[in-house]
Amino acid sequence: MSLLIVGSVALDDIETTHGKAERILGGAASFASIAAAHFTQPQLLGIVGDDFPLEHIELFKARGVDTQALEIKPGKTFYWAGRYHADFMHRDTLLTELGVFENWSPTIPEALRGAAYVLLGNIHPELQLHVLEQMPGARFVACDTMNLWIKTARRGLNQVIEKIDLLLINDEEARMLSGEVALPLAARAIQAQGPRVVIIKRGEHGASVHTPDGVFYVPAYPVEAIVDPTGAGDTFAGALMGFLASRDSVEFSDLCQGVVQGAVLASFAVETFSLEGLVAARPQEIEQRAQTLARMVRW
Amino acid sequence: MSLLIVGSVALDDIETTHGKAERILGGAASFASIAAAHFTQPQLLGIVGDDFPLEHIELFKARGVDTQALEIKPGKTFYWAGRYHADFMHRDTLLTELGVFENWSPTIPEALRGAAYVLLGNIHPELQLHVLEQMPGARFVACDTMNLWIKTARRGLNQVIEKIDLLLINDEEARMLSGEVALPLAARAIQAQGPRVVIIKRGEHGASVHTPDGVFYVPAYPVEAIVDPTGAGDTFAGALMGFLASRDSVEFSDLCQGVVQGAVLASFAVETFSLEGLVAARPQEIEQRAQTLARMVRW
Repeated sequence: MSLLIVGSVALDDIETTHGKAERILGGAASFASIAAAHFTQPQLLGIVGDDFPLEHIELFKARGVDTQALEIKPGKTFYWAGRYHADFMHRDTLLTELGVFENWSPTIPEALRGAAYVLLGNIHPELQLHVLEQMPGARFVACDTMNLWIKTARRGLNQVIEKIDLLLINDEEARMLSGEVALPLAARAIQAQGPRVVIIKRGEHGASVHTPDGVFYVPAYPVEAIVDPTGAGDTFAGALMGFLASRDSVEFSDLCQGVVQGAVLASFAVETFSLEGLVAARPQEIEQRAQTLARMVRW
Repeated sequence: MSLLIVGSVALDDIETTHGKAERILGGAASFASIAAAHFTQPQLLGIVGDDFPLEHIELFKARGVDTQALEIKPGKTFYWAGRYHADFMHRDTLLTELGVFENWSPTIPEALRGAAYVLLGNIHPELQLHVLEQMPGARFVACDTMNLWIKTARRGLNQVIEKIDLLLINDEEARMLSGEVALPLAARAIQAQGPRVVIIKRGEHGASVHTPDGVFYVPAYPVEAIVDPTGAGDTFAGALMGFLASRDSVEFSDLCQGVVQGAVLASFAVETFSLEGLVAARPQEIEQRAQTLARMVRW
C-alpha cells in the first residue's frame, strides 16, 4: 500500500569525532524515505530551495522514492550545522537556516491524498495537523516528535497525538510528555491520549513497542564504529513504516518485524555520514544483521 | 556446585517517592544470597555487628543460605541511609557508618575454600583480592564493582579484573573503565584485560552479556511500580551465579538463561523495600515473568 512521508529535506554540516562533512544530504524525510524505499515506493512530501543539488533528487528517484510532492522553490534549502560531543548523545547546533522551509505549508497533491500509510516526520505540530486535515482517509498514521515541540507547541502536539495511530518518541521525551518516570507507564499514559501504538526509542539500548496486544523489545544492533548518529531515528521510523506499508498490515507480529528492520537500517545509517550507509546496505547484509539481532535475544 | 558470595550485609534507611523505611535489611551480599538461594544453597561471607537482628539471620537460614561464614563481631552493623530522586536513577547518601565492616578482613573458613563458584560483591578491590588469594582453586569468579573504585582504587581493581572470569558493570562505569564510548567496544576492551565474560547492566533497559561465543541481550522486566531500586544489581548477580552454580555450567546458553533469571528476580526486588519481594517471589511467578520476557523479544 502507498506510504506518504512528510518532513524536512536538508543540507547539513556535521562534525563528529570521526570527521567533518559539509553540505551533505540530510533531513528527517530524506532518511525516512530512503529507509522506507528498501521495502516500498514511498512518496516524499517536502520542500527544498533552488540551491538543492539535482543529484540528490536523482538519488531519491533511483531508490524508488516518488518525488512528485517534493517542492522546489526559489530560495535556500533548510541548512543545519551541528557538532556532536564524543558521547554521540549530545550535540551543539551551530547554525540553523530555515530557508524555504520557514513558510512552507505542505499541500498534498490530489493524487497522493489516498495514501493509506502516513509518516509525519519531526516537524512543527501545526504542519503535521495541516497534513492530517488533507488526508482524512489515511488508515495508519505514525508521528515522530521531539522535546522542542513538547515544550513550545504542546497544545498542537496534543491535537496531533489524539489523531494518530503510532507515536515514536525517545525515552526522555516520553517521560516529559507523560509525567511518568517508568517507561511502561509513560507508554500507557501516552496511549490513553490516542495512539494505539507507542514506540519508545532508547538509543544504544534499542526500542520498545507498546500496544494493547503486547510489548516488544528490540536491542540496538551493536555498531562498533558510529560515524554520525544523525537520522538514526528517522531511518528507524521510515524502515518500520515502509515495512508495514509493504505488508499492508499493522498486526503486532508485523510491528515487531518492522521495528527489527528499523533497528537494522538505523545501524547502517550511523556507520557513515549522510545516507551513504543506508543506500549501500544490501538485502543480504540487512538479513544478516536481522539474524544477528535474533540470535542476541534467543535463549 | 558450591557458591560463595562475599560482600556487605547492612542495615539501611531508605527514602523513595513511595515512602520511607528504617533499619531494613540491606547490603549487596544479602540481596545476592537470597537471590542465589532460589537456585542453590549459597555460602554467605560477610560481617555484622552485635546489633544485627537475629531474625535476619533466621531469614537467611530459612531460605537455605549457609551463614557459617557470616561473622558477628561486637560493634555496629554497616549502616547506610539514602534518599532516591524521583527518577530512581540518582540518589543522595545521607549517612554511612561502616561499623564492624571498616576493619573487616574476610577470612574464609577452611570448609568453604573449595567453592567452585565465587561472587565478589561490590566491596573494595583489596578485599576482593584478599578473598581471591584464599581461593586459588575457584573455577568461575564473578565480580561486581562501582565508579568509586574505578576512581579511587584503580590499581587494585585492575588486579582483580585480571584474575576473574566475569565482570558485572553498569554502562557508565564500562565507559569509564575502558575509555570507549560504544558499549560493544567497551565490553571488548574490558575482556582484553582478563574476564572472558562482561555483563553490562543498563538499568531500565536491561543488560547485555559479552562473551567470545556471542552477545546476548535481555530487556528489563517492565516493572510498573518501582518502590526501591536498592539491590537490583546485586540481585541480578546473585541470581545469575546461583543459576550457574546449580547447573555447574558457564556455557553461553546457561549464561543467557542465568541473566534472564537475574532480570526476573531483580524485578521482584525493586517492587518492595528490602528483600520482601525477593523472598516472596514464588517459582511459578518467576517462571511467568521469564515467559513474559521471552515473548517480549520474539518475532
